[in-house]
Amino acid sequence: MQNSISGFSKLSKTEKIDWLIQSYFYNDECAKSILTQYWNSDKKLQKLHDEFIENTITNFYLPLGVAPNFLINDHLYTIPMAIEESSVIAAASKAAKFWLNRGGFKAEVISTVKIGQVHFTYTGDKNVLHSFFNAIKSKLIADASDITKNMERRGGGILDIELRDKTGDLENYYQLHATFETLDAMGANFINSCLEQFANTFKIEAQNHDVDGIDVIMSILSNYVPECLVKAEVRCKIEDLKDKDIPEPYIFAKKFKQAITIAEIEPHRAVTHNKGVMNGIDAVVLATGNDFRAVEAGVHAYASKEGNYSSLTHCSIDNDEFCFWIEIPLALGTVGGLTSLHPLVKFALQLLQNPKARDLMKIVAVAGLAQNFAAVKSLTTTGIQQGHMKMHLMNILNQFDADETEKSELIEYFKTTTVTHSAVVEAITKLRSK
Amino acid sequence: MQNSISGFSKLSKTEKIDWLIQSYFYNDECAKSILTQYWNSDKKLQKLHDEFIENTITNFYLPLGVAPNFLINDHLYTIPMAIEESSVIAAASKAAKFWLNRGGFKAEVISTVKIGQVHFTYTGDKNVLHSFFNAIKSKLIADASDITKNMERRGGGILDIELRDKTGDLENYYQLHATFETLDAMGANFINSCLEQFANTFKIEAQNHDVDGIDVIMSILSNYVPECLVKAEVRCKIEDLKDKDIPEPYIFAKKFKQAITIAEIEPHRAVTHNKGVMNGIDAVVLATGNDFRAVEAGVHAYASKEGNYSSLTHCSIDNDEFCFWIEIPLALGTVGGLTSLHPLVKFALQLLQNPKARDLMKIVAVAGLAQNFAAVKSLTTTGIQQGHMKMHLMNILNQFDADETEKSELIEYFKTTTVTHSAVVEAITKLRSK
Repeated sequence: MQNSISGFSKLSKTEKIDWLIQSYFYNDECAKSILTQYWNSDKKLQKLHDEFIENTITNFYLPLGVAPNFLINDHLYTIPMAIEESSVIAAASKAAKFWLNRGGFKAEVISTVKIGQVHFTYTGDKNVLHSFFNAIKSKLIADASDITKNMERRGGGILDIELRDKTGDLENYYQLHATFETLDAMGANFINSCLEQFANTFKIEAQNHDVDGIDVIMSILSNYVPECLVKAEVRCKIEDLKDKDIPEPYIFAKKFKQAITIAEIEPHRAVTHNKGVMNGIDAVVLATGNDFRAVEAGVHAYASKEGNYSSLTHCSIDNDEFCFWIEIPLALGTVGGLTSLHPLVKFALQLLQNPKARDLMKIVAVAGLAQNFAAVKSLTTTGIQQGHMKMHLMNILNQFDADETEKSELIEYFKTTTVTHSAVVEAITKLRSK
Repeated sequence: MQNSISGFSKLSKTEKIDWLIQSYFYNDECAKSILTQYWNSDKKLQKLHDEFIENTITNFYLPLGVAPNFLINDHLYTIPMAIEESSVIAAASKAAKFWLNRGGFKAEVISTVKIGQVHFTYTGDKNVLHSFFNAIKSKLIADASDITKNMERRGGGILDIELRDKTGDLENYYQLHATFETLDAMGANFINSCLEQFANTFKIEAQNHDVDGIDVIMSILSNYVPECLVKAEVRCKIEDLKDKDIPEPYIFAKKFKQAITIAEIEPHRAVTHNKGVMNGIDAVVLATGNDFRAVEAGVHAYASKEGNYSSLTHCSIDNDEFCFWIEIPLALGTVGGLTSLHPLVKFALQLLQNPKARDLMKIVAVAGLAQNFAAVKSLTTTGIQQGHMKMHLMNILNQFDADETEKSELIEYFKTTTVTHSAVVEAITKLRSK
């Protein structure tokens, strides 16, 4: 059955699907109709989505939901989230509501510098290289002016280029380490285009200046952006934490802080703790057309920057005041890329009142903090499974095609019984054999 | 306009949308129709997707594409990928094709152990705690038998529970550190349910044994899974690397290895390098209904395990043989969660010939390795922008609603001109003013 194929990308979408169905599904027409059922009825819209990538066969659905009641710097937001995990939006909404009446979230952008590097080897005299670099630095920048002119007009561009000697780490290894301000663009294409231009100029000028022994390895932006940083926090008097779930706020605050401290010192816990933060962050990153792999890589590397993988969030209790905050690197865009192409991304950005990249950094950081607050609150009080399994119950019921009567009966039953997959299967089997 | 709201989650989907449109879109019916245009025409199918999470308003489309020609352990696969980034599937397909004629990919699962912890404080005598733990260890396991019986029947379950003294890191801090084998399930719900049961038994038995001073902080699985590990590799004689893009294989191999070495020693580069790996990995993780936040967190923490954030892939050249490999922790499931609920996830798993979790670990690791091979190959030869911007060009043209004639003319033009956003805007403006 399974064959290799040449020229697959040149086939039409229908031809591609036919080959798949023939090669892997014994020509089963049902398999084909699963794919076509997910096509949009608007052909032009579907074509737009097809052309985002190569070899598209259909649209993968992620639920797009919203979490209302986010008060951020005294401004109310309803945050769009694209996420498949059942409890994330429910948790975010709960955290938003909790802090709505306690002053809301405060957020500030600390810095917005992005980084790119031309990596090269050089086998000659270091002093020659330094003189050469100083002589051509302005030319490196000037030669990129076709690429930078629009960005400069808006107030961004290349901030600096340094020559970095990395020969202590690897023989003959140097970098052109460049910094950029890309304003409302995430800036990956801009930075990479600049860097490839730097590399070209660098090679040409080396010949012009008779500098031998330079070999450019590669030119590429860095997704490690510790200077593209945002902070978000919540704070209130411990006694004001009192709530129906928090009858004893002093005990709650102490336990909550212990849980954060554990995530600060114990990598096994820190990874899951930060995973929870990223549940909130990625959901907004996806909904706003940003690249979650870039964000994930930068964030987790930041979490390991002290040599020990650690928590992204922190908690303090001073003078009976509870404070909980996050400091996180986020390189995001609100123009370019998918932001002006994907109609639902446009909708999501409009729902957020067309934020600047700096505003979006704040909103995303808040979503991460809120998510973590909800998770740690559950963990240190009722346990995580209660809320999670309640949402998961609905999924299991759907898997068994439960009808509305069965659903309501079983939801009632599992209010007092622990949800496990086998318990649900047992209950539904019992109900149906009545 | 923007208001806070109570009981939002209890509104119907239409009521939720009406509130959004009223609060953030000046009652603009066009905004509403953007959302409804993305609803599936099959109402039952739409309801299924709506119920995955809370507050769903529509389906967020990610393109679902396929990359054919993956030869893995002498078996051919076409790999499903859900991803919005334009060059990822094109790059994966190219790498698959390249290695198809060079022996393909080899992959092996090294281990499949998962971890969960009950975190607690204890203020009494350490010897008392150790004796108590040893006395009740079998009871901890026995009390969880309702949760574990199905998993045990299939050959998995609780592997061990250790008492870990962490008081060197934090005053009075201890853990019940448990290990699990969850077979084809990712196992998050299973592990968390076991852990919460351990915590309950632990508290009750402490009373029964008159052990005072135990306070359970939280019970939760760890997404740090360094013992749930898979390795994938490609290898061939250097001369066999020769290809239309690789006229000089010895020079290519040397430069490729340099690029990997740089990613091993330079965190700025390592982060982006690994981000590229994750482009491939997350796309398959998403398409197969797994949780990419969990995978991301575990993988990046693994990349920082030596204290310095480093590359996930490695390269060696021995006796003129080129070898390139990845070793990566992946906790994946092919049963449970979304796998049996989301029709496109079912399709994706069927396309992969209904893999066991162990098989999926191999396929996903290969997708990551292939992605990284393609990226580093581009970076060290033509540069990344050439391929990337060619795909991006189509997106910019769509943004300007270019028709087919305009598209073909401009694609031709940009075969010899550098693609930048402003260059494309200029070219299309010029073309239209002709």
